[in-house]
Amino acid sequence: MDLQEIRLEELNPDKFIAEKIEEISSIVGDGLAINALSGGVDSSVVTLLGHKALGDRLKTYFIDNGLMRDGEPRHIVSLFKDLGVKVELFDAQKTFFQALKGRTDPEEKREAITSSFYRDVFGDLVKETGAKHLLQGTNYTDIEETVAGIKRQHNILEQLGIDPEEMYGYKVIEPLIQIRKSSIRQVGKALGLPEEIYNRPPFPGPALAARVIGETTPKRVETVRRATKIVEEELSDSGAFQYLAILHEDRVVGIREGKRDFGLQIEVRCWESVDAIIGSPTRLPYDVLDRLAERITTEVPGVVSVTYNITKKPPSTIEAV
Amino acid sequence: MDLQEIRLEELNPDKFIAEKIEEISSIVGDGLAINALSGGVDSSVVTLLGHKALGDRLKTYFIDNGLMRDGEPRHIVSLFKDLGVKVELFDAQKTFFQALKGRTDPEEKREAITSSFYRDVFGDLVKETGAKHLLQGTNYTDIEETVAGIKRQHNILEQLGIDPEEMYGYKVIEPLIQIRKSSIRQVGKALGLPEEIYNRPPFPGPALAARVIGETTPKRVETVRRATKIVEEELSDSGAFQYLAILHEDRVVGIREGKRDFGLQIEVRCWESVDAIIGSPTRLPYDVLDRLAERITTEVPGVVSVTYNITKKPPSTIEAV
Repeated sequence: MDLQEIRLEELNPDKFIAEKIEEISSIVGDGLAINALSGGVDSSVVTLLGHKALGDRLKTYFIDNGLMRDGEPRHIVSLFKDLGVKVELFDAQKTFFQALKGRTDPEEKREAITSSFYRDVFGDLVKETGAKHLLQGTNYTDIEETVAGIKRQHNILEQLGIDPEEMYGYKVIEPLIQIRKSSIRQVGKALGLPEEIYNRPPFPGPALAARVIGETTPKRVETVRRATKIVEEELSDSGAFQYLAILHEDRVVGIREGKRDFGLQIEVRCWESVDAIIGSPTRLPYDVLDRLAERITTEVPGVVSVTYNITKKPPSTIEAV
Repeated sequence: MDLQEIRLEELNPDKFIAEKIEEISSIVGDGLAINALSGGVDSSVVTLLGHKALGDRLKTYFIDNGLMRDGEPRHIVSLFKDLGVKVELFDAQKTFFQALKGRTDPEEKREAITSSFYRDVFGDLVKETGAKHLLQGTNYTDIEETVAGIKRQHNILEQLGIDPEEMYGYKVIEPLIQIRKSSIRQVGKALGLPEEIYNRPPFPGPALAARVIGETTPKRVETVRRATKIVEEELSDSGAFQYLAILHEDRVVGIREGKRDFGLQIEVRCWESVDAIIGSPTRLPYDVLDRLAERITTEVPGVVSVTYNITKKPPSTIEAV
């Protein structure tokens, strides 16, 4: 890979911001650009960089793919409104669930989300807006893992030999491609993002579809969404790098009201990591694990079993899908 | 249920033993009886009670169903030889795996094991030996859970309205049906069983088939057998009530030698309990959890992820299948 990494210790956030604003301005020229904000630190930083470079000539959309966390779409739109950035909420739930129907293989799920996003949803928005450029938050770790063949990221195209202009009609600009998560947080802070955003734990591109083993249906996403909310409430003060809930496809035997219940299992993962390359499970106090299990089995319908990941990355990965 | 429980605090082990020896003698009379020893505390206690009552007129078999733990069949036969009890090892692996082929539902798996055991294997042995009575280690908790509909135990027949004499040609004697696990351990100690046996953690009737979610194939049993060996080695000093490894059917993403590996997951459970009616996960030190994950992902081929159960019973059960 030719791409030169800018390491955290080499990063000057203000200089980086000035360079990227200049770069985006010069590439887009007088035209329009478009970007999708997911509310994660990467796309939030890209949104602010693009907004500073292009002002109203950057059209920012929040694509509601039905795979977001509880209350997320409206919360993020409102938060950016407070920062002076207009974000349009676009409901694409049907498109995504249609594309995900019947798919159980992780790579096929990622592919369905990628093509729904770039081809179906963004293709239309680009035509409507007349934008020729798409800004994206791809970072150095995404590229590295995709090239290494560990995972197909949702936002890697050129690295895989796919020409987005030919395939989807627009050019992709990736301002964060030389830096990793810890540097992106520094840039976000320097840009004036609220800490809630710049210190936000990572959340995968395929969103809750990456948290469902097996088929991604609206019902199964709702189950993992409820578990995710509990995990985030209980672990937001843990100081961990990332924490997540995974809905398994396997069913396990449980007891409800004295009767056998062949129910659902949720796996909780909580990671200590600097940059997601390596990681180890957070040594959460057992009182916290007890409360997680108690709340998830009580508040999420159908769940009879909760486990906690105890494997390091590698050989595990951060996400299960 | 009419059956009267004898509680731990009411139990006089020597009196119980004398009564049961008398009872077995009077039921069997001059005939032959047969029993299957699995190496668990229940069947071990029954074997000694029956041996004291009947001497050589009790034929004890160790049925190797291919679902036992590593080295178990020979170890148990040798241990009883040292106690002066002759146990015959009977290889029935093909019969059981044939019956389990293609079955993924827990109840169907239990049913396949039950009918392989009683009809196919024991039917033949009864005919060969001429025995009219079968001694079995069914205990009070088994009956209670089966009647409550939580789980179909492998050894419950009359409670479900099945007449074993009519169906399989023999009568079942269940000397432990009024007592629970903690009492059975007391009886085992009083009978002179080694502590390794009378304090042995419970092991399910369907053996490692209860530790495999999905289809029970020889290959999948071998995977969970290796994980079980590691869990038992690492947790035998934990003082826990029971500890086990479960092979999931779900596959999760992992990394091996820098490449994506869509691999296997093992769930470890370790229980604090008195009698298996209620239980809570043992608060194992994280160093122990680390070592379990490290050893299982290194020593068991194909495993990239290990989790630890954090749910109490109820709503979980001790086993997952």
